[in-house]
Amino acid sequence: MSSALTFALAQIDTCVGDLHGNSEKVMSAVRQAHAHQADVVVFPEMTLTGYPIEDLAYRDTFRREAVRVVHQIASDLANEGLGDTYVILGSIGRPEGVLTRESTKPRNRMLILHSGHVVAHYDKHFLPNYGVFDEYRIFSSGNKPLVLTINGRRIGVAICEDIWQDGGPVAELSHENIDVLVTINGSPYEEGKSQTRLDFAHKRAQQLGVPVVYVNQVGGQDDLVFDGSSFVISPAGTVLERSPEFAEDVSYWTLPAPSSDSTQFESLEQSRTTIAPEMIGNEEVYRACVLGLKDYAAKNGFTGAVLGLSGGIDSALTATMAADAFGASHVWGISMPSQFSSGGSKTDAEQLADNLGCHYETQPIEPLYKAFQQQLSLSGTAQENLQARIRGVIVMAYSNSKGLLALATGNKSELSCGYSTIYGDAVGGFAPIKDVFKTRVWELSRWRNRWAREHGQTEPIPVSSITKPPSAELRPGQKDSDSLPEYHLLDQVLEAYIEKAHGRADLLSDGFDAKTVDTVMRLVDRAEWKRRQYPVGPKVSSLAFGRDRRLPITSRFRE
Amino acid sequence: MSSALTFALAQIDTCVGDLHGNSEKVMSAVRQAHAHQADVVVFPEMTLTGYPIEDLAYRDTFRREAVRVVHQIASDLANEGLGDTYVILGSIGRPEGVLTRESTKPRNRMLILHSGHVVAHYDKHFLPNYGVFDEYRIFSSGNKPLVLTINGRRIGVAICEDIWQDGGPVAELSHENIDVLVTINGSPYEEGKSQTRLDFAHKRAQQLGVPVVYVNQVGGQDDLVFDGSSFVISPAGTVLERSPEFAEDVSYWTLPAPSSDSTQFESLEQSRTTIAPEMIGNEEVYRACVLGLKDYAAKNGFTGAVLGLSGGIDSALTATMAADAFGASHVWGISMPSQFSSGGSKTDAEQLADNLGCHYETQPIEPLYKAFQQQLSLSGTAQENLQARIRGVIVMAYSNSKGLLALATGNKSELSCGYSTIYGDAVGGFAPIKDVFKTRVWELSRWRNRWAREHGQTEPIPVSSITKPPSAELRPGQKDSDSLPEYHLLDQVLEAYIEKAHGRADLLSDGFDAKTVDTVMRLVDRAEWKRRQYPVGPKVSSLAFGRDRRLPITSRFRE
Repeated sequence: MSSALTFALAQIDTCVGDLHGNSEKVMSAVRQAHAHQADVVVFPEMTLTGYPIEDLAYRDTFRREAVRVVHQIASDLANEGLGDTYVILGSIGRPEGVLTRESTKPRNRMLILHSGHVVAHYDKHFLPNYGVFDEYRIFSSGNKPLVLTINGRRIGVAICEDIWQDGGPVAELSHENIDVLVTINGSPYEEGKSQTRLDFAHKRAQQLGVPVVYVNQVGGQDDLVFDGSSFVISPAGTVLERSPEFAEDVSYWTLPAPSSDSTQFESLEQSRTTIAPEMIGNEEVYRACVLGLKDYAAKNGFTGAVLGLSGGIDSALTATMAADAFGASHVWGISMPSQFSSGGSKTDAEQLADNLGCHYETQPIEPLYKAFQQQLSLSGTAQENLQARIRGVIVMAYSNSKGLLALATGNKSELSCGYSTIYGDAVGGFAPIKDVFKTRVWELSRWRNRWAREHGQTEPIPVSSITKPPSAELRPGQKDSDSLPEYHLLDQVLEAYIEKAHGRADLLSDGFDAKTVDTVMRLVDRAEWKRRQYPVGPKVSSLAFGRDRRLPITSRFRE
Repeated sequence: MSSALTFALAQIDTCVGDLHGNSEKVMSAVRQAHAHQADVVVFPEMTLTGYPIEDLAYRDTFRREAVRVVHQIASDLANEGLGDTYVILGSIGRPEGVLTRESTKPRNRMLILHSGHVVAHYDKHFLPNYGVFDEYRIFSSGNKPLVLTINGRRIGVAICEDIWQDGGPVAELSHENIDVLVTINGSPYEEGKSQTRLDFAHKRAQQLGVPVVYVNQVGGQDDLVFDGSSFVISPAGTVLERSPEFAEDVSYWTLPAPSSDSTQFESLEQSRTTIAPEMIGNEEVYRACVLGLKDYAAKNGFTGAVLGLSGGIDSALTATMAADAFGASHVWGISMPSQFSSGGSKTDAEQLADNLGCHYETQPIEPLYKAFQQQLSLSGTAQENLQARIRGVIVMAYSNSKGLLALATGNKSELSCGYSTIYGDAVGGFAPIKDVFKTRVWELSRWRNRWAREHGQTEPIPVSSITKPPSAELRPGQKDSDSLPEYHLLDQVLEAYIEKAHGRADLLSDGFDAKTVDTVMRLVDRAEWKRRQYPVGPKVSSLAFGRDRRLPITSRFRE
């Protein structure tokens, strides 16, 4: 007998390596889903191990323990009387059959638990090895499709990249007369990716003629933020369910019981259930940065943060994100004025801290600067860097003394051009806005203030921090525009050069003038060594610095 | 008519991206080989682009220019009257035929130049994507073998990894009746790798029944050092030619003219030519570090270096390497004593500088430390880190003022355990001994002193720097052994945990006690964030930190 089938989309925030904690989350979501009479609970890719595990995949003791834990959960679920619920989750698996050097690598595996046992498994076929992904490095490929029959319904399965590529085991499902495709994912956030995912899932739904259940991970993992945004889409392209962004969630969707061909389309389209609202661009990027920061801190044992407050927009936005991530009472903002700091900067820093309600302390750097200068008599860039580095020492002193996560406040434009002092303003364990261009920093700040206004709260960021011309204030009257093109232009060139890998000829065809192009390319190329030593921060764009863009430090290519 | 064929093994030091400079080196080596009446000049893998190019492969303007330059060289050689010499070199190539998403990626290509033209090409089949390699990320695979006929002799070809794996186009050569196999390589140094390469080349020589000409790159590229060590090996396993380690070189070997079956074996074995001496272990590792440092500096425009001299062994060895790389007159050693520095430390630092003949300046940190403490009143670790960070500021001040490359002096044991201060002693553009365990640091120091003695030179490293118990000297009476197991034991555990990926259970079976194992694993796991921000330095072991070992910072796996 075939019947309706209720799926729980368990969009949980796992942690890499936390086999025990991730298991607890699975147990808890299954309990919840069972109470809701779900037939099948679907978790994200590599649920138990967390994702991505990188070279942890090489450690045999880790692989063994991950395998053990799967069986433990199956058994624990049955012992709690939850064994009749089908659980679809991800972990790491051992390859079978004849092993070659290549095929001895472990598998990125989906496991199906029922009645106290692992009743089936499926191994990811397409291993992404581009952008931030290194799966060909650590896994070997599966090559068999899997169809589960549950309550008479036929469920085809896939893991993440398997629906992004044509062919493979998913294509073979077209001959299998399935009723639904379930895919488990670890798909990191970048702006605009929700639509891309919907498009791919829709393509497969059309190809197979069945709805697609897409469950994605949520949470931060080093430089990646997983937005969740799980969904169910019909072959007609109707979103039948959408889970919230940037939050853990268990939502439900019921595959209707089979009916005559004439009503089947209709009953499917009517299975529409909770549809979480979509965030607009600025809100989405802002929330991604906050979640990336919050999870990095939580998963690494930090409960608060410290950063320098210069009165400028970068530190103002970063502090606001920190207050949103930790609560203002866990944030320390340190004003470190020098003889070159304008009165406005000091006022803006203090006003920001006051608006947020975070800790605010002032540590003038002049006495320290004088002590160094008496000994070293520096001038020029060395003298400017000295100021920034004294501030770096102070921020780290707070971090060490109070056990706070130090935050680097640099944005993507600065990081691109090397317009920061290494071991100075670049110190920190995490850099929340490192993938956000300067012009976007202003937009996010305006958005955050507007959001506060609309929610009857104090606008956190002083207007003058947004409107004044950016300055590092390391010498009298200094402005960023002395050294860099205006940000409006700079950010366009950077986007083309960095995110689109446009070379000089391409940039000229893009319409940028040769002088700007040459200046920007030279700055970006020379700053690679600084970027290598920069803290991690959340990827929010299509191409972030770090493992997403692997360029040699030593390169003499000049166009 | 078949005849003898003379090969020039052109082991040159290329630079990534330097299409023009690498072309010049090719031209110069061909001139030299032509004067020597070589028939074929063989260069390393990706000669013109340098190796590895990483994501530069994605830039279309780079790919186009690399293709243009190959044709330019072919034409320039002919114009100089060198067109009758066959030139085998490497570059990047465009794929042909029907293109899929995968196959549009460029190729790692060998090109054969003759008479002003590119007369043939071969694309690398096996793309290494493990360890430090990411070739599957950036290239697509070739799948056709290539046999060149030159003066009636049949030459099979391969690129690097193609001889490390069974199967592929090289295996197909067994039906092609070839006379010799030529392979071009970008095989980075690690201790013991020469033998591994000989073993693989010998295996292919046996399989194909012909000698193998193996040409490898030499020089430093970021965290990699290519040792050269090109060679020719016979099917019987006789090394017929060996080029020097760590030096540019053009050597020659002649494939004997065909003879009757009874004398062919003998004539091949008699083709033995220059055999460069093999270095012993400590010398090899030391030279690798020096070349890595020297080339990083040269290719990034530095002519000198600065580092802090503590009187300890790590800074002493690093300074000695710097003096060997740049000449002592280009090295600045800064002594930065505090109230906790022993008299012996100051004397040892000065003695070292005196032995080397490098610049030596003293910058006491006490006045600076007092200025900070007056304002911050730090204690415990924060207070210890403050001292190291003041020193970091001073080293960077010298770097900025004098345009010197700052050197981080940390060793692999420290880096493993996080036993260093980030933004303190960890500052620098390059870290020459980051892949050398502490016990090896002592060995290398002893070796370097012995070498000096044997060459009638002053022993650079003060004996007391080698023999005294290691101390960070950040508090009275501090010893490394207060916080860490004794180095002799520690380094063994680290080698097993890091280089062999042994987990807790494995380490206990290795015979280490549980307390040590737990301490070491905890230290290593917690220090990942610091390692991410550490400068690059040369890989000399089978598994170095950096792209060779990609572990998440955020990981809760605890055994």
